[in-house]
Amino acid sequence: MIVKETNIRVPYGHTDQMGFVYYGNYPLYYEIGRTESLRSMATSYKALEDDNILMPVIDMNIKYVKPARYDDLLTIRTIVKELPSTRMKFFYEIYNQSVELLNLGETTLIFLSQERNRPVRCPDWMLDIFKKEMVKA
Amino acid sequence: MIVKETNIRVPYGHTDQMGFVYYGNYPLYYEIGRTESLRSMATSYKALEDDNILMPVIDMNIKYVKPARYDDLLTIRTIVKELPSTRMKFFYEIYNQSVELLNLGETTLIFLSQERNRPVRCPDWMLDIFKKEMVKA
Amino acid sequence: MIVKETNIRVPYGHTDQMGFVYYGNYPLYYEIGRTESLRSMATSYKALEDDNILMPVIDMNIKYVKPARYDDLLTIRTIVKELPSTRMKFFYEIYNQSVELLNLGETTLIFLSQERNRPVRCPDWMLDIFKKEMVKA
Amino acid sequence: MIVKETNIRVPYGHTDQMGFVYYGNYPLYYEIGRTESLRSMATSYKALEDDNILMPVIDMNIKYVKPARYDDLLTIRTIVKELPSTRMKFFYEIYNQSVELLNLGETTLIFLSQERNRPVRCPDWMLDIFKKEMVKA
Repeated sequence: MIVKETNIRVPYGHTDQMGFVYYGNYPLYYEIGRTESLRSMATSYKALEDDNILMPVIDMNIKYVKPARYDDLLTIRTIVKELPSTRMKFFYEIYNQSVELLNLGETTLIFLSQERNRPVRCPDWMLDIFKKEMVKA
Repeated sequence: MIVKETNIRVPYGHTDQMGFVYYGNYPLYYEIGRTESLRSMATSYKALEDDNILMPVIDMNIKYVKPARYDDLLTIRTIVKELPSTRMKFFYEIYNQSVELLNLGETTLIFLSQERNRPVRCPDWMLDIFKKEMVKA
Repeated sequence: MIVKETNIRVPYGHTDQMGFVYYGNYPLYYEIGRTESLRSMATSYKALEDDNILMPVIDMNIKYVKPARYDDLLTIRTIVKELPSTRMKFFYEIYNQSVELLNLGETTLIFLSQERNRPVRCPDWMLDIFKKEMVKA
Repeated sequence: MIVKETNIRVPYGHTDQMGFVYYGNYPLYYEIGRTESLRSMATSYKALEDDNILMPVIDMNIKYVKPARYDDLLTIRTIVKELPSTRMKFFYEIYNQSVELLNLGETTLIFLSQERNRPVRCPDWMLDIFKKEMVKA
Protein backbone atom coordinates (compact mmCIF):
# COMPACT_ATOMS: atom_id res chain seq x y z
CA MET A 1 0.00 0.00 0.00
CA ILE A 2 1.32 3.42 -0.94
CA VAL A 3 0.20 6.36 1.19
CA LYS A 4 1.14 9.94 0.38
CA GLU A 5 0.05 13.17 1.99
CA THR A 6 -0.25 16.67 0.63
CA ASN A 7 -1.76 19.88 1.97
CA ILE A 8 -4.10 22.46 0.56
CA ARG A 9 -5.33 25.68 2.14
CA VAL A 10 -9.04 26.29 1.39
CA PRO A 11 -9.43 29.57 -0.55
CA TYR A 12 -12.48 31.79 -0.28
CA GLY A 13 -13.41 30.95 -3.85
CA HIS A 14 -14.01 27.31 -2.90
CA THR A 15 -16.66 28.10 -0.30
CA ASP A 16 -20.35 28.54 -1.02
CA GLN A 17 -23.04 30.48 0.77
CA MET A 18 -23.54 27.63 3.28
CA GLY A 19 -20.08 28.66 4.51
CA PHE A 20 -18.62 25.27 3.54
CA VAL A 21 -16.43 24.09 0.69
CA TYR A 22 -18.74 23.53 -2.29
CA TYR A 23 -19.19 19.81 -2.88
CA GLY A 24 -17.94 20.14 -6.45
CA ASN A 25 -14.43 21.16 -5.38
CA TYR A 26 -13.40 17.79 -3.95
CA PRO A 27 -12.53 16.25 -7.34
CA LEU A 28 -9.93 19.04 -7.70
CA TYR A 29 -8.54 18.15 -4.27
CA TYR A 30 -8.30 14.50 -5.34
CA GLU A 31 -6.48 15.53 -8.51
CA ILE A 32 -3.99 17.53 -6.43
CA GLY A 33 -3.60 14.48 -4.16
CA ARG A 34 -2.91 12.17 -7.12
CA THR A 35 -0.49 14.60 -8.77
CA GLU A 36 1.53 15.23 -5.64
CA SER A 37 1.63 11.53 -4.74
CA LEU A 38 3.14 10.81 -8.17
CA ARG A 39 5.59 13.67 -7.72
CA SER A 40 6.70 12.28 -4.34
CA MET A 41 7.59 9.04 -6.20
CA ALA A 42 9.85 11.07 -8.49
CA THR A 43 7.52 10.84 -11.46
CA SER A 44 4.57 12.90 -12.64
CA TYR A 45 1.33 12.85 -14.50
CA LYS A 46 3.03 15.27 -16.88
CA ALA A 47 5.66 12.62 -17.69
CA LEU A 48 2.81 10.30 -18.70
CA GLU A 49 1.34 12.95 -20.99
CA ASP A 50 4.80 13.48 -22.49
CA ASP A 51 4.65 9.73 -23.21
CA ASN A 52 1.30 10.40 -24.99
CA ILE A 53 -0.72 8.67 -22.32
CA LEU A 54 -3.74 10.36 -20.78
CA MET A 55 -5.40 9.20 -17.57
CA PRO A 56 -9.07 10.13 -17.65
CA VAL A 57 -11.21 9.32 -14.62
CA ILE A 58 -13.94 6.78 -15.41
CA ASP A 59 -15.67 6.65 -12.05
CA MET A 60 -15.65 8.43 -8.73
CA ASN A 61 -17.35 7.91 -5.37
CA ILE A 62 -17.41 10.53 -2.63
CA LYS A 63 -18.60 10.48 0.96
CA TYR A 64 -19.00 13.93 2.48
CA VAL A 65 -18.46 13.28 6.19
CA LYS A 66 -18.04 16.81 7.62
CA PRO A 67 -17.78 20.16 5.91
CA ALA A 68 -14.44 21.80 5.15
CA ARG A 69 -14.36 25.55 5.77
CA TYR A 70 -12.58 28.65 4.54
CA ASP A 71 -8.91 28.81 5.50
CA ASP A 72 -8.84 25.20 6.73
CA LEU A 73 -5.49 23.58 6.15
CA LEU A 74 -6.52 20.27 4.63
CA THR A 75 -4.42 17.12 4.49
CA ILE A 76 -5.19 14.93 1.51
CA ARG A 77 -4.08 11.33 2.00
CA THR A 78 -3.84 9.57 -1.34
CA ILE A 79 -3.72 5.79 -1.16
CA VAL A 80 -2.85 3.18 -3.78
CA LYS A 81 -3.76 -0.35 -2.68
CA GLU A 82 -3.08 -2.32 -5.84
CA LEU A 83 -0.67 -2.12 -8.75
CA PRO A 84 -2.20 -0.58 -11.86
CA SER A 85 -3.05 -2.72 -14.89
CA THR A 86 -5.21 -1.08 -17.57
CA ARG A 87 -6.91 0.69 -14.69
CA MET A 88 -5.71 2.37 -11.59
CA LYS A 89 -7.55 3.09 -8.37
CA PHE A 90 -6.79 5.89 -5.97
CA PHE A 91 -8.41 6.30 -2.55
CA TYR A 92 -8.53 9.62 -0.70
CA GLU A 93 -9.02 10.73 2.87
CA ILE A 94 -9.23 14.43 3.66
CA TYR A 95 -8.59 15.74 7.16
CA ASN A 96 -8.61 19.25 8.59
CA GLN A 97 -6.04 20.84 10.92
CA SER A 98 -7.81 19.22 13.91
CA VAL A 99 -7.33 15.79 12.28
CA GLU A 100 -11.07 15.39 11.81
CA LEU A 101 -11.97 13.19 8.86
CA LEU A 102 -13.97 15.36 6.44
CA ASN A 103 -14.18 13.41 3.25
CA LEU A 104 -13.61 9.98 1.70
CA GLY A 105 -13.26 9.32 -1.99
CA GLU A 106 -12.14 6.88 -4.62
CA THR A 107 -11.50 7.27 -8.32
CA THR A 108 -10.77 4.79 -11.10
CA LEU A 109 -8.62 6.02 -13.98
CA ILE A 110 -7.67 4.36 -17.22
CA PHE A 111 -4.49 4.66 -19.25
CA LEU A 112 -5.44 6.00 -22.67
CA SER A 113 -3.09 6.10 -25.64
CA GLN A 114 -3.48 9.51 -27.20
CA GLU A 115 -2.32 8.32 -30.63
CA ARG A 116 -4.51 5.23 -30.81
CA ASN A 117 -7.30 6.76 -28.72
CA ARG A 118 -7.81 3.53 -26.82
CA PRO A 119 -7.02 2.05 -23.42
CA VAL A 120 -3.57 0.58 -22.87
CA ARG A 121 -1.75 -1.04 -19.96
CA CYS A 122 0.16 1.09 -17.46
CA PRO A 123 3.58 1.70 -19.06
CA ASP A 124 6.38 -0.47 -17.61
CA TRP A 125 8.47 2.46 -16.39
CA MET A 126 5.54 3.63 -14.27
CA LEU A 127 4.66 0.14 -13.07
CA ASP A 128 8.25 -0.25 -11.86
CA ILE A 129 7.94 2.92 -9.82
CA PHE A 130 4.79 1.64 -8.13
CA LYS A 131 6.38 -1.77 -7.47
CA LYS A 132 9.34 -0.16 -5.72
CA GLU A 133 7.06 2.03 -3.63
CA MET A 134 4.93 -0.97 -2.65
CA VAL A 135 8.06 -2.77 -1.38
CA LYS A 136 9.17 0.28 0.61
CA ALA A 137 5.79 0.61 2.27
CA MET B 1 -40.77 8.61 -10.87
CA ILE B 2 -40.15 12.26 -11.63
CA VAL B 3 -37.99 13.07 -14.66
CA LYS B 4 -36.99 16.61 -15.56
CA GLU B 5 -34.65 17.88 -18.23
CA THR B 6 -32.55 20.98 -18.46
CA ASN B 7 -29.83 22.15 -20.85
CA ILE B 8 -26.40 23.59 -20.39
CA ARG B 9 -23.94 24.78 -23.04
CA VAL B 10 -20.36 23.79 -22.18
CA PRO B 11 -18.21 26.92 -21.77
CA TYR B 12 -14.52 27.04 -22.60
CA GLY B 13 -13.69 27.44 -18.94
CA HIS B 14 -15.05 23.96 -18.18
CA THR B 15 -12.68 22.19 -20.55
CA ASP B 16 -9.18 21.04 -19.66
CA GLN B 17 -6.12 20.44 -21.78
CA MET B 18 -7.36 16.98 -22.76
CA GLY B 19 -9.99 18.94 -24.71
CA PHE B 20 -12.79 17.46 -22.59
CA VAL B 21 -14.95 18.80 -19.77
CA TYR B 22 -12.86 18.51 -16.59
CA TYR B 23 -14.21 15.69 -14.42
CA GLY B 24 -14.72 18.06 -11.51
CA ASN B 25 -17.39 20.09 -13.31
CA TYR B 26 -20.09 17.39 -13.30
CA PRO B 27 -21.18 18.06 -9.70
CA LEU B 28 -22.05 21.61 -10.84
CA TYR B 29 -24.09 20.17 -13.72
CA TYR B 30 -25.94 17.93 -11.25
CA GLU B 31 -26.65 20.95 -9.03
CA ILE B 32 -28.09 22.80 -12.03
CA GLY B 33 -30.17 19.70 -12.84
CA ARG B 34 -31.54 19.51 -9.28
CA THR B 35 -32.26 23.23 -9.10
CA GLU B 36 -34.06 23.38 -12.42
CA SER B 37 -36.06 20.21 -11.67
CA LEU B 38 -37.31 21.85 -8.46
CA ARG B 39 -38.10 25.04 -10.37
CA SER B 40 -40.12 23.09 -12.93
CA MET B 41 -42.25 21.83 -10.00
CA ALA B 42 -42.95 25.44 -9.05
CA THR B 43 -40.69 25.38 -6.03
CA SER B 44 -37.00 26.02 -5.51
CA TYR B 45 -34.01 25.20 -3.44
CA LYS B 46 -34.03 28.88 -2.51
CA ALA B 47 -37.51 28.45 -0.94
CA LEU B 48 -36.03 25.73 1.25
CA GLU B 49 -33.21 28.02 2.37
CA ASP B 50 -35.76 30.74 3.11
CA ASP B 51 -37.37 28.09 5.35
CA ASN B 52 -33.93 27.74 7.04
CA ILE B 53 -33.33 24.31 5.61
CA LEU B 54 -30.07 23.49 3.85
CA MET B 55 -29.59 20.44 1.66
CA PRO B 56 -25.94 19.39 1.76
CA VAL B 57 -24.84 16.46 -0.37
CA ILE B 58 -23.60 13.52 1.71
CA ASP B 59 -22.57 11.16 -1.05
CA MET B 60 -22.11 11.14 -4.79
CA ASN B 61 -21.27 8.50 -7.39
CA ILE B 62 -20.28 9.34 -10.95
CA LYS B 63 -19.68 7.20 -14.01
CA TYR B 64 -17.83 9.02 -16.79
CA VAL B 65 -19.06 7.22 -19.92
CA LYS B 66 -17.88 9.51 -22.72
CA PRO B 67 -16.27 12.95 -22.64
CA ALA B 68 -18.29 16.14 -23.06
CA ARG B 69 -16.61 18.77 -25.20
CA TYR B 70 -16.51 22.53 -25.59
CA ASP B 71 -19.72 24.04 -26.95
CA ASP B 72 -21.68 20.79 -26.53
CA LEU B 73 -25.31 21.43 -25.72
CA LEU B 74 -25.85 19.03 -22.84
CA THR B 75 -29.17 17.70 -21.63
CA ILE B 76 -29.21 16.91 -17.94
CA ARG B 77 -31.98 14.46 -17.00
CA THR B 78 -32.66 14.64 -13.29
CA ILE B 79 -34.61 11.72 -11.86
CA VAL B 80 -36.33 11.24 -8.50
CA LYS B 81 -37.38 7.62 -7.90
CA GLU B 82 -38.57 7.79 -4.28
CA LEU B 83 -40.21 10.33 -2.04
CA PRO B 84 -37.77 12.08 0.30
CA SER B 85 -37.71 11.32 4.04
CA THR B 86 -34.74 12.66 5.99
CA ARG B 87 -32.75 11.96 2.85
CA MET B 88 -33.35 12.54 -0.81
CA LYS B 89 -31.78 10.82 -3.78
CA PHE B 90 -31.36 12.34 -7.21
CA PHE B 91 -30.15 10.43 -10.28
CA TYR B 92 -28.65 12.13 -13.32
CA GLU B 93 -28.10 11.25 -16.94
CA ILE B 94 -26.21 13.64 -19.19
CA TYR B 95 -26.53 13.48 -22.97
CA ASN B 96 -24.98 15.56 -25.73
CA GLN B 97 -26.71 17.04 -28.81
CA SER B 98 -26.31 13.68 -30.61
CA VAL B 99 -28.20 11.98 -27.74
CA GLU B 100 -25.09 10.06 -26.71
CA LEU B 101 -25.03 9.18 -23.03
CA LEU B 102 -21.96 10.89 -21.55
CA ASN B 103 -22.37 10.64 -17.83
CA LEU B 104 -24.34 8.93 -15.06
CA GLY B 105 -24.54 10.16 -11.50
CA GLU B 106 -26.38 9.93 -8.23
CA THR B 107 -26.33 12.08 -5.15
CA THR B 108 -27.82 11.73 -1.69
CA LEU B 109 -28.77 14.91 0.13
CA ILE B 110 -30.00 15.47 3.66
CA PHE B 111 -32.37 18.11 4.99
CA LEU B 112 -30.48 20.11 7.58
CA SER B 113 -32.12 22.58 9.96
CA GLN B 114 -29.92 25.66 9.97
CA GLU B 115 -31.11 26.75 13.41
CA ARG B 116 -30.68 23.42 15.13
CA ASN B 117 -27.77 22.34 12.91
CA ARG B 118 -29.12 18.81 12.65
CA PRO B 119 -30.95 16.63 10.11
CA VAL B 120 -34.73 16.96 9.86
CA ARG B 121 -37.42 15.38 7.72
CA CYS B 122 -38.34 16.88 4.35
CA PRO B 123 -40.82 19.68 5.15
CA ASP B 124 -44.46 18.76 4.43
CA TRP B 125 -44.99 21.51 1.85
CA MET B 126 -42.14 20.09 -0.21
CA LEU B 127 -43.21 16.49 0.30
CA ASP B 128 -46.66 17.43 -1.04
CA ILE B 129 -45.08 18.84 -4.18
CA PHE B 130 -43.19 15.62 -4.80
CA LYS B 131 -46.27 13.49 -4.12
CA LYS B 132 -48.27 15.42 -6.71
CA GLU B 133 -45.48 15.11 -9.26
CA MET B 134 -45.20 11.37 -8.62
CA VAL B 135 -48.92 10.96 -9.35
CA LYS B 136 -48.64 13.01 -12.55
CA ALA B 137 -45.72 10.95 -13.79
CA MET C 1 -22.33 48.98 -32.32
CA ILE C 2 -23.39 45.37 -31.83
CA VAL C 3 -25.31 44.55 -28.66
CA LYS C 4 -26.31 40.99 -27.78
CA GLU C 5 -27.94 39.63 -24.64
CA THR C 6 -27.80 36.24 -23.01
CA ASN C 7 -28.99 34.89 -19.66
CA ILE C 8 -27.41 32.82 -16.97
CA ARG C 9 -28.92 31.51 -13.75
CA VAL C 10 -26.48 31.76 -10.82
CA PRO C 11 -25.76 28.28 -9.44
CA TYR C 12 -24.96 27.60 -5.79
CA GLY C 13 -21.44 26.64 -6.75
CA HIS C 14 -20.71 30.20 -7.91
CA THR C 15 -21.50 31.78 -4.54
CA ASP C 16 -19.04 32.17 -1.72
CA GLN C 17 -19.52 32.44 2.03
CA MET C 18 -20.31 36.16 1.76
CA GLY C 19 -23.50 34.94 0.06
CA PHE C 20 -22.53 36.64 -3.22
CA VAL C 21 -21.17 35.41 -6.52
CA TYR C 22 -17.41 34.96 -6.05
CA TYR C 23 -15.55 37.71 -7.90
CA GLY C 24 -13.59 35.17 -9.90
CA ASN C 25 -16.68 33.86 -11.71
CA TYR C 26 -17.32 36.96 -13.82
CA PRO C 27 -14.70 36.11 -16.46
CA LEU C 28 -16.72 32.92 -17.11
CA TYR C 29 -19.87 35.02 -17.50
CA TYR C 30 -18.06 37.26 -19.98
CA GLU C 31 -16.92 34.19 -21.93
CA ILE C 32 -20.52 32.97 -22.10
CA GLY C 33 -21.57 36.44 -23.25
CA ARG C 34 -18.94 36.48 -26.01
CA THR C 35 -19.75 32.95 -27.16
CA GLU C 36 -23.48 33.49 -27.31
CA SER C 37 -23.09 36.86 -29.07
CA LEU C 38 -21.04 35.14 -31.79
CA ARG C 39 -23.64 32.36 -32.00
CA SER C 40 -26.44 34.91 -32.45
CA MET C 41 -24.49 36.21 -35.49
CA ALA C 42 -24.60 32.70 -36.96
CA THR C 43 -20.95 32.01 -36.27
CA SER C 44 -19.03 30.67 -33.30
CA TYR C 45 -15.80 30.72 -31.46
CA LYS C 46 -15.63 27.01 -32.30
CA ALA C 47 -15.63 27.89 -36.03
CA LEU C 48 -12.57 30.04 -35.40
CA GLU C 49 -10.79 27.18 -33.63
CA ASP C 50 -11.70 24.89 -36.55
CA ASP C 51 -9.90 27.52 -38.67
CA ASN C 52 -6.89 27.06 -36.33
CA ILE C 53 -7.31 30.47 -34.77
CA LEU C 54 -7.34 30.89 -31.01
CA MET C 55 -8.56 34.02 -29.26
CA PRO C 56 -6.75 34.37 -25.94
CA VAL C 57 -7.67 37.28 -23.68
CA ILE C 58 -4.76 39.70 -23.18
CA ASP C 59 -6.36 42.13 -20.78
CA MET C 60 -9.49 42.50 -18.69
CA ASN C 61 -11.00 45.22 -16.50
CA ILE C 62 -13.89 44.61 -14.13
CA LYS C 63 -15.99 46.94 -12.01
CA TYR C 64 -18.01 45.15 -9.34
CA VAL C 65 -20.99 47.46 -8.83
CA LYS C 66 -23.40 45.33 -6.80
CA PRO C 67 -23.25 41.67 -5.78
CA ALA C 68 -25.03 38.95 -7.76
CA ARG C 69 -26.69 36.33 -5.61
CA TYR C 70 -27.69 32.67 -5.74
CA ASP C 71 -30.50 31.92 -8.17
CA ASP C 72 -30.38 35.41 -9.73
CA LEU C 73 -31.30 35.34 -13.40
CA LEU C 74 -28.54 37.45 -14.89
CA THR C 75 -28.63 39.22 -18.23
CA ILE C 76 -25.22 39.58 -19.83
CA ARG C 77 -25.12 42.36 -22.44
CA THR C 78 -22.12 41.90 -24.71
CA ILE C 79 -21.16 44.93 -26.74
CA VAL C 80 -18.81 45.34 -29.71
CA LYS C 81 -18.08 48.99 -30.51
CA GLU C 82 -15.39 48.65 -33.19
CA LEU C 83 -14.53 46.20 -35.93
CA PRO C 84 -11.74 43.81 -34.99
CA SER C 85 -8.25 44.13 -36.52
CA THR C 86 -5.50 42.09 -34.89
CA ARG C 87 -7.32 42.74 -31.64
CA MET C 88 -10.92 42.68 -30.61
CA LYS C 89 -12.61 44.41 -27.70
CA PHE C 90 -15.77 43.25 -25.97
CA PHE C 91 -17.64 45.23 -23.34
CA TYR C 92 -20.02 43.64 -20.83
CA GLU C 93 -22.86 44.81 -18.64
CA ILE C 94 -24.50 42.38 -16.23
CA TYR C 95 -27.97 43.01 -14.83
CA ASN C 96 -30.13 41.00 -12.45
CA GLN C 97 -33.85 40.20 -12.80
CA SER C 98 -34.69 43.63 -11.27
CA VAL C 99 -32.65 45.30 -14.02
CA GLU C 100 -30.07 46.52 -11.51
CA LEU C 101 -26.62 46.96 -12.99
CA LEU C 102 -24.31 44.60 -11.12
CA ASN C 103 -21.13 44.48 -13.09
CA LEU C 104 -19.19 46.19 -15.89
CA GLY C 105 -16.31 44.64 -17.78
CA GLU C 106 -14.14 44.82 -20.83
CA THR C 107 -11.75 42.37 -22.40
CA THR C 108 -9.24 42.60 -25.23
CA LEU C 109 -8.58 39.45 -27.22
CA ILE C 110 -6.07 38.75 -29.95
CA PHE C 111 -6.35 36.44 -32.95
CA LEU C 112 -3.59 33.84 -32.66
CA SER C 113 -2.63 31.47 -35.46
CA GLN C 114 -2.25 28.05 -33.86
CA GLU C 115 0.12 26.82 -36.58
CA ARG C 116 2.42 29.83 -36.57
CA ASN C 117 1.88 30.60 -32.88
CA ARG C 118 1.70 34.33 -33.56
CA PRO C 119 -0.94 37.06 -33.80
CA VAL C 120 -2.81 37.43 -37.08
CA ARG C 121 -5.57 39.71 -38.35
CA CYS C 122 -9.22 38.77 -37.84
CA PRO C 123 -10.05 36.40 -40.71
CA ASP C 124 -12.06 38.01 -43.54
CA TRP C 125 -15.06 35.70 -43.18
CA MET C 126 -15.44 36.82 -39.55
CA LEU C 127 -14.81 40.47 -40.32
CA ASP C 128 -17.63 40.32 -42.91
CA ILE C 129 -20.01 38.99 -40.28
CA PHE C 130 -19.18 41.87 -37.94
CA LYS C 131 -19.51 44.43 -40.75
CA LYS C 132 -23.01 43.18 -41.60
CA GLU C 133 -24.03 43.28 -37.94
CA MET C 134 -22.69 46.81 -37.56
CA VAL C 135 -24.85 47.96 -40.49
CA LYS C 136 -27.94 46.24 -39.06
CA ALA C 137 -27.47 47.91 -35.70
CA MET D 1 6.05 48.91 0.10
CA ILE D 2 5.16 45.43 1.30
CA VAL D 3 6.07 42.53 -0.99
CA LYS D 4 5.11 38.94 -0.17
CA GLU D 5 5.49 35.80 -2.22
CA THR D 6 3.54 32.58 -2.27
CA ASN D 7 3.54 29.56 -4.57
CA ILE D 8 0.84 27.61 -6.31
CA ARG D 9 1.16 24.51 -8.46
CA VAL D 10 -1.18 24.66 -11.47
CA PRO D 11 -3.65 21.75 -11.32
CA TYR D 12 -5.09 20.07 -14.42
CA GLY D 13 -8.51 21.46 -13.58
CA HIS D 14 -7.27 25.02 -14.11
CA THR D 15 -6.22 24.43 -17.72
CA ASP D 16 -8.49 24.74 -20.72
CA GLN D 17 -8.35 23.15 -24.13
CA MET D 18 -5.85 25.74 -25.37
CA GLY D 19 -3.48 23.96 -22.96
CA PHE D 20 -3.12 27.11 -20.85
CA VAL D 21 -4.52 28.21 -17.50
CA TYR D 22 -8.05 29.50 -18.17
CA TYR D 23 -8.11 33.28 -17.90
CA GLY D 24 -10.81 33.13 -15.23
CA ASN D 25 -8.56 31.39 -12.71
CA TYR D 26 -6.26 34.35 -12.05
CA PRO D 27 -8.63 36.08 -9.60
CA LEU D 28 -8.35 32.93 -7.44
CA TYR D 29 -4.56 33.16 -7.61
CA TYR D 30 -4.76 36.81 -6.54
CA GLU D 31 -7.00 35.83 -3.62
CA ILE D 32 -4.46 33.21 -2.55
CA GLY D 33 -1.73 35.86 -2.86
CA ARG D 34 -3.67 38.33 -0.69
CA THR D 35 -4.53 35.71 1.92
CA GLU D 36 -1.02 34.38 2.27
CA SER D 37 0.48 37.88 2.36
CA LEU D 38 -1.81 38.70 5.32
CA ARG D 39 -0.88 35.40 6.98
CA SER D 40 2.83 36.20 6.63
CA MET D 41 2.13 39.41 8.59
CA ALA D 42 0.70 37.29 11.40
CA THR D 43 -2.89 38.24 10.67
CA SER D 44 -5.54 36.87 8.34
CA TYR D 45 -8.55 37.71 6.28
CA LYS D 46 -10.38 35.32 8.57
CA ALA D 47 -9.53 37.54 11.57
CA LEU D 48 -11.21 40.41 9.74
CA GLU D 49 -14.35 38.33 9.15
CA ASP D 50 -14.33 37.35 12.83
CA ASP D 51 -14.36 41.13 13.44
CA ASN D 52 -17.47 41.25 11.16
CA ILE D 53 -15.66 43.01 8.38
CA LEU D 54 -15.86 41.74 4.81
CA MET D 55 -13.50 42.82 2.06
CA PRO D 56 -15.27 42.59 -1.28
CA VAL D 57 -13.33 43.41 -4.43
CA ILE D 58 -14.73 46.47 -6.24
CA ASP D 59 -12.45 46.54 -9.24
CA MET D 60 -9.80 44.44 -10.90
CA ASN D 61 -7.43 44.88 -13.85
CA ILE D 62 -5.49 42.01 -15.39
CA LYS D 63 -2.78 41.88 -18.04
CA TYR D 64 -2.22 38.40 -19.45
CA VAL D 65 1.44 38.53 -20.53
CA LYS D 66 2.24 34.85 -21.19
CA PRO D 67 0.24 31.70 -20.57
CA ALA D 68 0.70 29.59 -17.44
CA ARG D 69 0.61 25.84 -18.07
CA TYR D 70 -0.29 22.64 -16.30
CA ASP D 71 2.08 21.72 -13.46
CA ASP D 72 3.84 25.09 -13.55
CA LEU D 73 5.03 26.15 -10.12
CA LEU D 74 3.84 29.73 -10.00
CA THR D 75 5.15 32.45 -7.73
CA ILE D 76 2.55 35.06 -6.84
CA ARG D 77 4.13 38.34 -5.68
CA THR D 78 1.56 40.39 -3.79
CA ILE D 79 2.43 44.04 -3.35
CA VAL D 80 0.95 46.74 -1.12
CA LYS D 81 2.16 50.22 -2.01
CA GLU D 82 -0.03 52.39 0.22
CA LEU D 83 -1.63 52.08 3.62
CA PRO D 84 -5.33 51.19 3.46
CA SER D 85 -8.01 53.77 4.30
CA THR D 86 -11.59 52.83 3.37
CA ARG D 87 -10.06 51.09 0.40
CA MET D 88 -7.08 48.89 -0.10
CA LYS D 89 -5.13 48.18 -3.24
CA PHE D 90 -3.15 45.03 -3.95
CA PHE D 91 -0.87 44.54 -6.95
CA TYR D 92 0.12 41.11 -8.25
CA GLU D 93 2.90 39.71 -10.39
CA ILE D 94 2.86 36.04 -11.34
CA TYR D 95 6.01 34.26 -12.47
CA ASN D 96 6.66 30.67 -13.50
CA GLN D 97 9.55 28.40 -12.42
CA SER D 98 11.74 29.96 -15.14
CA VAL D 99 11.10 33.41 -13.60
CA GLU D 100 9.16 34.52 -16.69
CA LEU D 101 6.56 37.16 -15.94
CA LEU D 102 3.18 35.66 -16.89
CA ASN D 103 0.59 37.97 -15.45
CA LEU D 104 0.07 41.40 -13.87
CA GLY D 105 -2.94 42.38 -11.85
CA GLU D 106 -4.40 44.86 -9.43
CA THR D 107 -7.47 44.80 -7.26
CA THR D 108 -9.21 47.38 -5.10
CA LEU D 109 -11.08 46.11 -2.06
CA ILE D 110 -13.27 47.93 0.42
CA PHE D 111 -13.81 47.29 4.11
CA LEU D 112 -17.48 46.50 4.63
CA SER D 113 -19.16 46.34 8.04
CA GLN D 114 -21.33 43.23 7.98
CA GLU D 115 -23.65 44.57 10.68
CA ARG D 116 -24.21 47.99 9.14
CA ASN D 117 -23.76 46.77 5.56
CA ARG D 118 -21.74 49.81 4.63
CA PRO D 119 -18.11 50.74 4.01
CA VAL D 120 -15.92 51.50 7.00
CA ARG D 121 -12.28 52.44 7.51
CA CYS D 122 -9.64 49.74 7.86
CA PRO D 123 -9.72 48.74 11.56
CA ASP D 124 -6.87 50.19 13.63
CA TRP D 125 -5.41 46.82 14.64
CA MET D 126 -4.97 45.96 10.96
CA LEU D 127 -3.65 49.40 10.03
CA ASP D 128 -1.00 49.01 12.75
CA ILE D 129 0.13 45.73 11.19
CA PHE D 130 0.53 47.36 7.80
CA LYS D 131 2.38 50.34 9.28
CA LYS D 132 4.91 48.05 10.97
CA GLU D 133 5.43 46.10 7.76
CA MET D 134 5.94 49.31 5.78
CA VAL D 135 8.68 50.35 8.19
CA LYS D 136 10.36 46.96 7.98
CA ALA D 137 10.37 47.06 4.20
